Amino acid sequence: MTEHIIWKNSQLHLLDQRLLPFKKVYVKCKTLQDITRAIKDMTIRGAPLIGIVAAYGVFLGVREILRRRKRITETDVNQVYQALKATRPTAVNLTWALDRMVKTYLQYRDSEDLPDFLLQAAITIHVEDVENNKKLSQYGSELIDDGDVILTHCNAGALATGGYGTALGVIRAAHESGKRIRVIATETRPYLQGARLTAWELHEDGIDVELVPDNHVGLLCWRGLVNKMIVGADRIAANGDVANKVGTYMLALAAHEHNIPFFVAAPKSSFDPAVKSGHQIEIEERPGDEVVVLQGKRLTLKGVKGRYFAFDITPARLITYIITENGVMDKPYSKYIKLLFSV
Amino acid sequence: MTEHIIWKNSQLHLLDQRLLPFKKVYVKCKTLQDITRAIKDMTIRGAPLIGIVAAYGVFLGVREILRRRKRITETDVNQVYQALKATRPTAVNLTWALDRMVKTYLQYRDSEDLPDFLLQAAITIHVEDVENNKKLSQYGSELIDDGDVILTHCNAGALATGGYGTALGVIRAAHESGKRIRVIATETRPYLQGARLTAWELHEDGIDVELVPDNHVGLLCWRGLVNKMIVGADRIAANGDVANKVGTYMLALAAHEHNIPFFVAAPKSSFDPAVKSGHQIEIEERPGDEVVVLQGKRLTLKGVKGRYFAFDITPARLITYIITENGVMDKPYSKYIKLLFSV
Repeated sequence: MTEHIIWKNSQLHLLDQRLLPFKKVYVKCKTLQDITRAIKDMTIRGAPLIGIVAAYGVFLGVREILRRRKRITETDVNQVYQALKATRPTAVNLTWALDRMVKTYLQYRDSEDLPDFLLQAAITIHVEDVENNKKLSQYGSELIDDGDVILTHCNAGALATGGYGTALGVIRAAHESGKRIRVIATETRPYLQGARLTAWELHEDGIDVELVPDNHVGLLCWRGLVNKMIVGADRIAANGDVANKVGTYMLALAAHEHNIPFFVAAPKSSFDPAVKSGHQIEIEERPGDEVVVLQGKRLTLKGVKGRYFAFDITPARLITYIITENGVMDKPYSKYIKLLFSV
Repeated sequence: MTEHIIWKNSQLHLLDQRLLPFKKVYVKCKTLQDITRAIKDMTIRGAPLIGIVAAYGVFLGVREILRRRKRITETDVNQVYQALKATRPTAVNLTWALDRMVKTYLQYRDSEDLPDFLLQAAITIHVEDVENNKKLSQYGSELIDDGDVILTHCNAGALATGGYGTALGVIRAAHESGKRIRVIATETRPYLQGARLTAWELHEDGIDVELVPDNHVGLLCWRGLVNKMIVGADRIAANGDVANKVGTYMLALAAHEHNIPFFVAAPKSSFDPAVKSGHQIEIEERPGDEVVVLQGKRLTLKGVKGRYFAFDITPARLITYIITENGVMDKPYSKYIKLLFSV
């Protein structure tokens, strides 16, 4: 895989995911504003990756302030925190990573090496994310059988994380263990993360992948052309309800109707035990133009408005297993999620 | 509405629906081959319209032969029939219209005015389709309430029929009767009939319409943003199973989950009582490139293959009502469909 997040020469280099797979352009981030912009405008996306990038953002924000003056206050750090938190509302990994960075700040606030500690903390969040993906992928791959045709939505791959991926990590691990699998990727409108990112990742790894419009999943189930589904998560509530890329819920309904196992793969950082159920998760609405304009080209008349809710909620009861780096959870999820956060 | 099918100067003028709403170009059909091409390459689409255009195709095919020689044989007519029938497999209106044309041929085979009778029969099929749409739309509009937000998929409008439309006909009739309604149109990948055709039709009529990606329907139901759904049909089996544009099934599953009424609007010519259930309906698979290339632009890497099944099957039990020109059917549909074909 092409590296997509690189810390080099005191800058964070982010592969611009809006241009993939056609162009490989890195956006260099030196300032807090560079980071908030990259998250907001979807230069990068994917819940775990947003968290990692935001962690680097805290370091860059603090560094900027310390270049102007000698000391940094709690108010300063809070401003950096708020600027990053305001970028996108749904993925909880963002808050999780910011909270970890604040802890590091509180621990080393009096040290003159504070910036070094913050950078180290961001790098650790990044490295641990990859390790956790590999762990959860190992657990998940045991649920995959030789000959499976696995459907996935959006991109929960290396590109959505620090590396390796969650849902695609499971697929990768199954493939690496010698299981012969085929993947069906939904194109995932409007951003086409499935077409542009997932198909590209799997193709690079030599995993057989076919692309379908999002509206095909019901038919594929009905015809027996799919026998497992796996997706990532942007936030998992205390009861196991999952916020993920819009369309996930419809996949889960079709899977449920046809008794097709439906897996969610996500690290502990995607859980939000403070949120009781999916009803309390804020769903981001993005500009309608992202639906009616594709790669600069208008798809309909000028007067017609689009609407784009970036996520939806899949109720826990439709999910067969939730796969984490600590193991595979089954229902009732509330019990296991409580356990996960008590250790 | 812009007229989209016009018989003029001994030719059939068809508005090229692939270019809408950006360009209004008419394709002129003088020969049987012009017609088969226009159906196959989707210059025109929509089950009722395919039937009407094929009816004109029979006339044009017969006229061609009679220009070369004096008499036409049953074998000739059968060849014309087969050429048209082979264009697209799912919509039954095609076979229905061809069968009606063959009846006209059998009735007037010995008349020197046979071509006139065939042209008249094609025009009658066209005119009756519009009349039937208006009738079914009147019935359907009684199911729509003031303030409804109605979701529709693909294009079952004037452009899909001889005129006025089926699902959009119902919406039109409700609007004309003074009910304040809003419409949410799914964009309908890969051909974007929702974005290009439905949004355009409704916009021209001054009906409030918003566009969403196909994957939004589950979320919209979950949030209570939709309170009715209505679609057309390409073929309805004897048990009420409905073949329609791929994605319809997923809409119906979401509607069912949230107790949202789900209507199918279709003329009698869309019913196929010879087919017991949806399992026996052939579903057209079109070239995968129609998914991975949009308006000449590739959406993913060159090596990645797309798949495109143009239709899916919605089981009868998910459908609240089927609206026809003879009235509104409820379950069990098999009983009413039998009745429809006994009169």
